[in-house]
Amino acid sequence: MSIDQRLSQLSIELPPPVQPLGSYCTAVQVGGLLFLSGHVPVRDGKMEYVGQLGREVTVEQGQAAARFTALNCLATIRAALGFLDRVRRIVRLTGYVNSAAGFNQQAAVLNGASDLLGAVFGESGVHVRTAVGAAELPGDATIELELTVNG
Amino acid sequence: MSIDQRLSQLSIELPPPVQPLGSYCTAVQVGGLLFLSGHVPVRDGKMEYVGQLGREVTVEQGQAAARFTALNCLATIRAALGFLDRVRRIVRLTGYVNSAAGFNQQAAVLNGASDLLGAVFGESGVHVRTAVGAAELPGDATIELELTVNG
Amino acid sequence: MSIDQRLSQLSIELPPPVQPLGSYCTAVQVGGLLFLSGHVPVRDGKMEYVGQLGREVTVEQGQAAARFTALNCLATIRAALGFLDRVRRIVRLTGYVNSAAGFNQQAAVLNGASDLLGAVFGESGVHVRTAVGAAELPGDATIELELTVNG
Repeated sequence: MSIDQRLSQLSIELPPPVQPLGSYCTAVQVGGLLFLSGHVPVRDGKMEYVGQLGREVTVEQGQAAARFTALNCLATIRAALGFLDRVRRIVRLTGYVNSAAGFNQQAAVLNGASDLLGAVFGESGVHVRTAVGAAELPGDATIELELTVNG
Repeated sequence: MSIDQRLSQLSIELPPPVQPLGSYCTAVQVGGLLFLSGHVPVRDGKMEYVGQLGREVTVEQGQAAARFTALNCLATIRAALGFLDRVRRIVRLTGYVNSAAGFNQQAAVLNGASDLLGAVFGESGVHVRTAVGAAELPGDATIELELTVNG
Repeated sequence: MSIDQRLSQLSIELPPPVQPLGSYCTAVQVGGLLFLSGHVPVRDGKMEYVGQLGREVTVEQGQAAARFTALNCLATIRAALGFLDRVRRIVRLTGYVNSAAGFNQQAAVLNGASDLLGAVFGESGVHVRTAVGAAELPGDATIELELTVNG
């Protein structure tokens, strides 16, 4: 089964790839590594998940924001590689979680992205991960995800 | 001298490798690069160093936390590569230091990890480093270390 | 035109390369990737831009700090590769912006670095980017930049 078929099976339709918010690009390939910019939960230019975990955003909402942002990453990967089937391995995910003082469940929040990557790519989707609590994020985004892919 | 002999000489016994806290893994190798997940100062499922520098944690305790966490990283590297002698170079260390407002000695804290890597690997242990003050970290960990290794 | 000629044309003179603040080094090359340490806006051992965006530092000052720090990165790259013309691509920029509560214009601040890289390297200077709001940074630096280069 192709990855696009897997996405259909999971009832996932990828959004159009996001545009950069400044003088940079969203993906650069060097050798076998595809580096992605930090992605936020934006769609059609509108930030869909804003605010901090531990204040106005619940863990469940944070997980939804993580999944939503991971879909933006997949759209960027598809645009960069041509086909998602060219992904050999999701290598690395760094997740910055917009965190109020005392919030320490960044790992639970990021599972919203990691679980999606596992569902879409199977064993090739299992990655290393760093979960960090950020003081603030661009546009008050609830989450920012940075992916490195082997493809 | 093998790295294991060096560890003995330094009276260091590595802990068992940590298990991931979510749907990810602790090490992925692509080409000559071994990427590690963010590691925290956990042992047997218990977070051994919690809290923020500049509040309840001193610089000396932070350095001990950094060294302790670096040992967790070494255990993961050994499990991934089979032998620590397969490390050609410790390439990169990103250290997130759980920091209260006004704490700016992240570099001093991370020397606890960098000094250990130098003692164990000699010139091959000298790496690039990024020290960041994090607002919060998973499980209220005092520190989180992310390593990239050439091996 | 060589990159050094381009710098002259832009009236840019690179500073001497910075020295590490601890037991690490400022650049490590593995295969085609040159990894740099996190760089801060220091010159001759003095931090030139301190404090937080959204408190005592304006966006314009933050952009100047980003540009200033990017020049430090270029000096490190030149020292590591011998010539800036050996840069095939600026691959990746992670920018940690020292951010007070409620400051969300990290992307605008980082354009100070990204625009410079584009001006110096043209299309080879267009990189992926992650903008993060840091709670605190070493030495109260206003910004910290981490670059990865293909060279």
